[in-house]
Amino acid sequence: MKILLVGASGTIGRAVRDELALRHEVLSAGRHSGEVAVDLTSPDSIRSMYQTVGKVDAVVSTAGKTFFGALQELTPENNEISIRSKLVGQMNLVLLGLNHVNDGGSFTLITGIIMDDPIVSGTSAAMTGGAIRSFVKSAAIEMPRGIRINNVSPTIVQESMETYGPYFPGFVPVPASRVAQAFRKSVEGGQTGQTYTVY
Amino acid sequence: MKILLVGASGTIGRAVRDELALRHEVLSAGRHSGEVAVDLTSPDSIRSMYQTVGKVDAVVSTAGKTFFGALQELTPENNEISIRSKLVGQMNLVLLGLNHVNDGGSFTLITGIIMDDPIVSGTSAAMTGGAIRSFVKSAAIEMPRGIRINNVSPTIVQESMETYGPYFPGFVPVPASRVAQAFRKSVEGGQTGQTYTVY
Repeated sequence: MKILLVGASGTIGRAVRDELALRHEVLSAGRHSGEVAVDLTSPDSIRSMYQTVGKVDAVVSTAGKTFFGALQELTPENNEISIRSKLVGQMNLVLLGLNHVNDGGSFTLITGIIMDDPIVSGTSAAMTGGAIRSFVKSAAIEMPRGIRINNVSPTIVQESMETYGPYFPGFVPVPASRVAQAFRKSVEGGQTGQTYTVY
Repeated sequence: MKILLVGASGTIGRAVRDELALRHEVLSAGRHSGEVAVDLTSPDSIRSMYQTVGKVDAVVSTAGKTFFGALQELTPENNEISIRSKLVGQMNLVLLGLNHVNDGGSFTLITGIIMDDPIVSGTSAAMTGGAIRSFVKSAAIEMPRGIRINNVSPTIVQESMETYGPYFPGFVPVPASRVAQAFRKSVEGGQTGQTYTVY
């Protein structure tokens, strides 16, 4: 398969690329890295990425910025960071990508455990996860040409424990390679409308 | 209690007002009706509403516009209708209202069954429900001064069957007065972080 991976430079993105590249042609897209440049917050940039890449069999996103901070510091303005990138950016990857995915292809987006199991300072990020989960479940019933759509919701990964561990007290980390298997299931399997939790 | 009800002119809003007004002072806010004017898509309008109303014990939202249409007609542009109103508008009611709610008060937002049980043409609306549900669950753990937050997720109501029934084949409607009881539970009860499904 030819797979477009958006967010390949992140911790999870690298693990997903390593896993999928064993069997597929993986094109990486990112804001500052990869074979193709894309700014998720810009529909024009997403359109331009798809023009450059051409038809693909799968689009995988491990991307999206969110605002992290205490609820009382969450404002309409900084909440927009999450809205524009992780939420609307990932939705637009699908809405603008439908005609660039081959028959029977797939989209796989990323959410996260905190939509179900909240942490302090994670409200804006948790919100984006819930949005993408319901988007995926609903979009799946209207996808054309046998195209599938799923999302992967990881807990914190071992590789990020030093940086983010203190925000996740009592959360049991998993290796990023384990999260990559859920992405593989979505891309190579046959299911649609699913949320693959890796908790 | 003094309760601010945003969206009081809708089918569910009227039922909620009828129920809560039996025991409380209910101030209605809406775009074109009610005692106070508010445009949910404008943070300045929300700020101005709270300035006018002063302190309240509960904020209840039965408001929010969404885009309804086939997935292949869903664009970055019309998806913004849902993002700006039902999603960000309801979030901003909370973020900008925190200092206007008395100790031990509450927020109650509205979601809907299609976030769990999707219908054709409902993807953008379903997405907003999932977002608000996770927002509520996460925000609940950081609410100051004993303030609570919940959401009510109704199925289609009997009063809307003539207009929306054809979009909900096989969904069993409930009376709006039944949905109003879930709002009452949120306002008068003691729970927080909950999604009250009325399916």
